[in-house]
Amino acid sequence: MKDMDIKAVFIGDKAENGAVYKMLLNKMVDEHLGWRENYLPGDLPAISEEDKLAPRYIATRERMMTVLDEVSERMRAGSIPWHSAGRYWGQMNAETLMPSLLAYNYAMLWNPNNVALESSMATSQMEAEVGQDFADLFNMTDGWGHITADGSIANLEGLWYARCIKSIPLAVKEVFPEKVENKTEWELLNLSVEEILEMIEKFTDEELDAVKAASSRSGKHIQELGKWLVPQTKHYSWMKALDICGVGLDQMIAIPVQEDYRMDVAELEKTIRELAEQKIPILGVVAVVGTTEEGQVDSVDKIVELREKLRGEGIYFYLHVDAAYGGYARSLFLNEAGEFVPYESLTEFFEEHQVFHHQVKIDKSVYDGFKAITEADSVTIDPHKMGYVPYAAGGIVIKHKNMRNIISYFAPYVFEKSVKAPDMLGAYILEGSKAGATAAAVWTAHRVLPLNVTGYGQLIGASIEAAQRFREFLGQLSFTVKGKTIEVHPLNHPDFNMVDWVFKVQDCTDLKKINDLNEKMFDVSSYMDGDVYDERFITSHTTFTKADYGDSPVKFIESLGLSKEEWQKEQQVTLLRAAIMTPYLNDDKIFKFYTDAITKAIEKKLNELL
Amino acid sequence: MKDMDIKAVFIGDKAENGAVYKMLLNKMVDEHLGWRENYLPGDLPAISEEDKLAPRYIATRERMMTVLDEVSERMRAGSIPWHSAGRYWGQMNAETLMPSLLAYNYAMLWNPNNVALESSMATSQMEAEVGQDFADLFNMTDGWGHITADGSIANLEGLWYARCIKSIPLAVKEVFPEKVENKTEWELLNLSVEEILEMIEKFTDEELDAVKAASSRSGKHIQELGKWLVPQTKHYSWMKALDICGVGLDQMIAIPVQEDYRMDVAELEKTIRELAEQKIPILGVVAVVGTTEEGQVDSVDKIVELREKLRGEGIYFYLHVDAAYGGYARSLFLNEAGEFVPYESLTEFFEEHQVFHHQVKIDKSVYDGFKAITEADSVTIDPHKMGYVPYAAGGIVIKHKNMRNIISYFAPYVFEKSVKAPDMLGAYILEGSKAGATAAAVWTAHRVLPLNVTGYGQLIGASIEAAQRFREFLGQLSFTVKGKTIEVHPLNHPDFNMVDWVFKVQDCTDLKKINDLNEKMFDVSSYMDGDVYDERFITSHTTFTKADYGDSPVKFIESLGLSKEEWQKEQQVTLLRAAIMTPYLNDDKIFKFYTDAITKAIEKKLNELL
Repeated sequence: MKDMDIKAVFIGDKAENGAVYKMLLNKMVDEHLGWRENYLPGDLPAISEEDKLAPRYIATRERMMTVLDEVSERMRAGSIPWHSAGRYWGQMNAETLMPSLLAYNYAMLWNPNNVALESSMATSQMEAEVGQDFADLFNMTDGWGHITADGSIANLEGLWYARCIKSIPLAVKEVFPEKVENKTEWELLNLSVEEILEMIEKFTDEELDAVKAASSRSGKHIQELGKWLVPQTKHYSWMKALDICGVGLDQMIAIPVQEDYRMDVAELEKTIRELAEQKIPILGVVAVVGTTEEGQVDSVDKIVELREKLRGEGIYFYLHVDAAYGGYARSLFLNEAGEFVPYESLTEFFEEHQVFHHQVKIDKSVYDGFKAITEADSVTIDPHKMGYVPYAAGGIVIKHKNMRNIISYFAPYVFEKSVKAPDMLGAYILEGSKAGATAAAVWTAHRVLPLNVTGYGQLIGASIEAAQRFREFLGQLSFTVKGKTIEVHPLNHPDFNMVDWVFKVQDCTDLKKINDLNEKMFDVSSYMDGDVYDERFITSHTTFTKADYGDSPVKFIESLGLSKEEWQKEQQVTLLRAAIMTPYLNDDKIFKFYTDAITKAIEKKLNELL
Repeated sequence: MKDMDIKAVFIGDKAENGAVYKMLLNKMVDEHLGWRENYLPGDLPAISEEDKLAPRYIATRERMMTVLDEVSERMRAGSIPWHSAGRYWGQMNAETLMPSLLAYNYAMLWNPNNVALESSMATSQMEAEVGQDFADLFNMTDGWGHITADGSIANLEGLWYARCIKSIPLAVKEVFPEKVENKTEWELLNLSVEEILEMIEKFTDEELDAVKAASSRSGKHIQELGKWLVPQTKHYSWMKALDICGVGLDQMIAIPVQEDYRMDVAELEKTIRELAEQKIPILGVVAVVGTTEEGQVDSVDKIVELREKLRGEGIYFYLHVDAAYGGYARSLFLNEAGEFVPYESLTEFFEEHQVFHHQVKIDKSVYDGFKAITEADSVTIDPHKMGYVPYAAGGIVIKHKNMRNIISYFAPYVFEKSVKAPDMLGAYILEGSKAGATAAAVWTAHRVLPLNVTGYGQLIGASIEAAQRFREFLGQLSFTVKGKTIEVHPLNHPDFNMVDWVFKVQDCTDLKKINDLNEKMFDVSSYMDGDVYDERFITSHTTFTKADYGDSPVKFIESLGLSKEEWQKEQQVTLLRAAIMTPYLNDDKIFKFYTDAITKAIEKKLNELL
């Protein structure tokens, strides 16, 4: 009975668990109010009953209530019903975990600030435990993690780590040349994170401070560190990160993706070798686990293999895995002991834990990609995506705890002097003040839903199952509208829980017309068309351009019956796009009801559009 | 009756308004639940009554409740009672605004993401209005602002703005040399923000894109931009910002502060002139409004004056005001029309709006400092500090809306093509996904408490009044403990609502012993000593070191009866430190009760310590 029931942890699409939510909310608010009342109960209350009768008090309360009425009205009129069990097929959003909402609400009443233990004794501890959860999720035995404001900030922090750490050998050469006199500059630029950590391990605190002062934080050495390689499918936050971090967009190289929208590792190798020949070092490589537009999983295993191979040739790169979207899905492969189960026993494992209710295939290559994340130097993982935790909650894990001493702003020995050392998280992260309530929300989610097959595995399994079924459903769907047949073409090779597709009038071979139809379909199925609350089918969309994707969409274009020339002419294809996150679609009855319902809704829209 | 009553907008130190809070909380939750129920009410609910009887459902609910009990226990055991009306005299924390808590709770149920309008129609609009509020607060008629994760991120974004904008002229020279052939490199590095905006105004979109690509975002030109000047009293986030942004700590120059802990503008001028003589440009200057450790307000007016003077000599610097802490206090000087009132009519103005209940002096120099913020190029302002909004809510304002087109990642014309243009905030800011609930919380606070004398002015007035009274109270305090007299010495010159002080055994002339006493006093009056919930006097502390402060503390050291030599020997002084934020201490009865109560508590602690 350890596998959790996802129907018990959400308020519910029709507020089915609303009564439980309200009961627990009130219970917890009462616990907080009691805490206030009972802190030195003999103290004089600041607000008397007489105060409450003052006209000014009454007028202010009235104003507050009026403003809150406006908040209520605006929220109800201007929100998307992504709590729906099957009307919303769009962004990475669904309703969020009831326990996280409750924990956030509760912790917020104390308003802890996790920048320092002094302001957040309870929630700082929770954040430390969440960081450990992240490290465990990726089987990083020496790992350390924390919550960030979002995935963009986590990516920026990952790049900052790479930049700072890779600059250390050059700083050592500058400050203590005798310590590295046996190494060439090229060798110094190709040391692994472990070798760099080992290099500074023997330094005194003062020596380390001097080296840090000469590292990239000085403003120097940044351009010498070399190129930052990202797949074409990168999130645009990587461009911002390179800009902000001073590494610069000129150092970015976008590696082509294959027809399955995964980074082409052969191209990656080729690029690295070409650069190495010119003695241009590789600062780092980003692998994406869960691409934003397709949900694809890069072959992290092959990238790790490549790194090992190149290492033998004196070439090394920092590896950051951007698993903002896909990271939590690794839970699916972990047993209760936190072990990554062998691929051969997966089917049995999923059956034992009743993860799926229909046949679901997890490709070996996807499995291998997830498994190899352990070898990354840092990983982005967002609780506010597949963690089903409310915004804003990103996260990052580093492979070695000691890496944080390189970016930190207080020498570790400051703390070691005292047993009751204040823990100053702000000294070890990019941000400053941060809501302890977020840590409470994530911690609670992780305790109710452990990061293994019994907890998040159940939730993410439901999501993947629904995505695979939805893709099948779309594949067999067609409409007859005003004498025309409208086909539906889902994108090939889905790795995770995202489904992209296009609507197409049969026999139409004009890509521009197809794109127009899908653009219009998005317009009438989204916030663009006004009152979303009445909408019966809501989706999001994406565009693959030749500039961003090269020719990787050609195979899909051809599968639509279009020529490659059509792609070369139009140079872009618009798709509708759904991250399937609703937790209820692994229920046959529900799936049937909603696919029928949206079929009707789509048919109606097509009738209006054509 | 427009002046608001601060007693009506908090839950209350003894939960006096707890019933109102619960009533509104439940009302709003019901409104949300109804919204879920009534979205296409004919749709099949995903969770049936039968589902709720499943043993797995029941077990999961039980687990959720057990975890939430642990959250409750941890929060109550590990939180600081900073809701207390007068027991907590420490960090920038008090209870937060009830309307903000309610709005956050409510909006979070929809989980809007303000990165894009598509995911947050209501709260994106609220954030735009909050940004306008910030611009209005600083009388920036062409200004634009948004919410950030925190003040550190806002500072980093401010530096990023400076770096990107100041690099534009060099980029123009590189890409279109003919457009600037009449300007020397030195002139290009000393253009004002307005001149740079004007320069690119006539560019086509394609030209602008080419220039942006060659700007500092490329990784180039960063070191040429020159020095970043900060006061010694800077927050440590400035060091992180310089590091992260690639400008580098080697480019930072810390300008000495005066005896009043404000930046020494004569020293600033001297430094700038020395640099200019060597043809080293000034990237920018930071002025602090509300220093973290003293609450001091830099003479922004004098810095602006200096900038005007130097401009005539061909020298220009970007000016960022770090008003993370002090920004909201500008409300005190704004009338309902948003006009900054003349200093001469301040007394009358405050009387008319019943801001103070005792004599409070706002120094002309402080007034002038606040007034001149209008002239800054960008400003950090944190709602989660003097905005009394829960964490995490920082903020930034830029003086000219168009500045954002320089850091943005989508050309503006992409949006102008379409009337129903999607608003993509993520393209214009440093961060990505962000909680719409935060915008709702800040928006609600600003609507209940306008950013002028009738709203925040009341709240901040109460805080400044309490700080001035508390300082007086400390000044006359002394204890007789075991035959020794213990004096209390508050720091000179408080500009805002922060009070620092030291305890000192009379006749003791040993700074080390004095520091030890105050360190110990902090230990027994903080989380360091265990159960804070039972603590009757809680405070925070700070240390002024010679390394950070130069000799600015000498006057204070001498006022303690110590010699300058003692300072030179010890090189640091530890002070206790209180940001007075509790909203209730402008009530005589409350002030008297709590100052009596903490006097007893301090006496008891001194008895134990000595």
